Amino acid sequence: MSQEPRPIGRHHAILSEFRQAFRAGLLADADGEPKLAIEGPRLIGEAIRSGYRIETALFSRTGLERLGAKLLPQLSKHTQTAVAEDKDFAGAMDVEHPQGAAALVRYPAPKLDDVFGKGDDGPALVVAAAEMQDPGNLGTLIRAADAFGATGVVALADTVNPFHPKAVRAAAGSLFHLPVVGKVTAEALIAACRRRSVRLLATSARGDAEAITAGLAEPLCFVIGQEAAGVPRDLQRAADAIITIPMTRAVESLNAGVAGAILLYEAARQRRAAGPA
Amino acid sequence: MSQEPRPIGRHHAILSEFRQAFRAGLLADADGEPKLAIEGPRLIGEAIRSGYRIETALFSRTGLERLGAKLLPQLSKHTQTAVAEDKDFAGAMDVEHPQGAAALVRYPAPKLDDVFGKGDDGPALVVAAAEMQDPGNLGTLIRAADAFGATGVVALADTVNPFHPKAVRAAAGSLFHLPVVGKVTAEALIAACRRRSVRLLATSARGDAEAITAGLAEPLCFVIGQEAAGVPRDLQRAADAIITIPMTRAVESLNAGVAGAILLYEAARQRRAAGPA
Repeated sequence: MSQEPRPIGRHHAILSEFRQAFRAGLLADADGEPKLAIEGPRLIGEAIRSGYRIETALFSRTGLERLGAKLLPQLSKHTQTAVAEDKDFAGAMDVEHPQGAAALVRYPAPKLDDVFGKGDDGPALVVAAAEMQDPGNLGTLIRAADAFGATGVVALADTVNPFHPKAVRAAAGSLFHLPVVGKVTAEALIAACRRRSVRLLATSARGDAEAITAGLAEPLCFVIGQEAAGVPRDLQRAADAIITIPMTRAVESLNAGVAGAILLYEAARQRRAAGPA
Repeated sequence: MSQEPRPIGRHHAILSEFRQAFRAGLLADADGEPKLAIEGPRLIGEAIRSGYRIETALFSRTGLERLGAKLLPQLSKHTQTAVAEDKDFAGAMDVEHPQGAAALVRYPAPKLDDVFGKGDDGPALVVAAAEMQDPGNLGTLIRAADAFGATGVVALADTVNPFHPKAVRAAAGSLFHLPVVGKVTAEALIAACRRRSVRLLATSARGDAEAITAGLAEPLCFVIGQEAAGVPRDLQRAADAIITIPMTRAVESLNAGVAGAILLYEAARQRRAAGPA
């Protein structure tokens, strides 16, 4: 149980730290691990349950009344707590419809090697997003990756920051369940897959529809491109196969988040059918 | 080929008709079929290719320069064409980033009976959205329904209007490919399914994960609920089964559009495996 939240004024450093952390996506810190800003009681609860350390918990006046009794007992005595006036709180949040409780979480940034899993969670199942611009779409993909047991998610260097507040919101806590790595170059991903004999499967509207109906139980990395443009050429060239989701009617393309979720679902289905590794 | 677009001033009736049509979703018209407002050359092209009648085509000054040479020859001589100043055009559009070409399309509103198909496109495959509030999500679901050969889409009475501009944009032309019916009551949907012996399958995080791994080749209607709340009780009670998407890790829930797309993908997969009807 943490102490009673301390009232802070509108120029307090805590408010500007939240503002900075939301803007940065993941706030670098000279003293230790980066900090991730999150908002809403569900996300905060998920961070705590997943064992992440909450450095600061900030409430709005109204949020404290509504959520304090439930959230405060879950916080450790090392968490600094504060309460701000509603409008000062809202001004520090970079989210739509803030719910009145926010946290700065110590988030040890995973490395590219981590996304392939440790082997005890089965063969690697990685999804890499290329040129995905919509943070909501990327967050949705991260949530699907979590649901279908992916070992990790890669956001390639040309993709929106996976720690963008809208991506964090759409990922709904999944960022605390599996390693997500941003700003990875195509070369680094290709090299890492080759080194580990992980199959690199690029997706395209004009790929092989049969390739996904079999063979997804092996260690693999899907590369999902932006809707119209598809997967960048260098990744297509390096891929072990170009696959496509079999469709009944030819639509221009599926939403990138949806396409990724279907591939992950299909891989999980095949892995279940193949039995435990 | 239509005639040269007529320049119109900022108070012209065409601009207010577009404004009304975007606001209404589907604009009722005493003289005939309702009108749907769409924006962007791709959507307009898709409406024309799908045989819909374009009543009015409106360009912005810049849009006409960029898109006129390509779009004008596709329009019939019965289409009224006009060009407005860029800012007047933008003021009449209810879309982000308008591309400079818009159309009012005669859209004969489908009836609930139409969503079950005519039999020549195989057994009924219907997806019904319950309490879905995000128009982008609903549009994404309509696009997936199109891709996986659904016979139709139902937006239940508590769901956002499927002809909301953001839903139309996200559906990316699929509204012209398969019947989409809005404002349907739960009772009407239940009765229509019973009358036709179409299985009603409600989805829930706590349903039967095995039910979707078989039996989806039969005529059926999926009911997709809102993320956290799930499918409303009356539909759950009336359902032939409550099913759930098998997941590897328990996430709170999948995005509703994603969940619907996966179910449709799985139904299409089983129907393909079962061979042509």
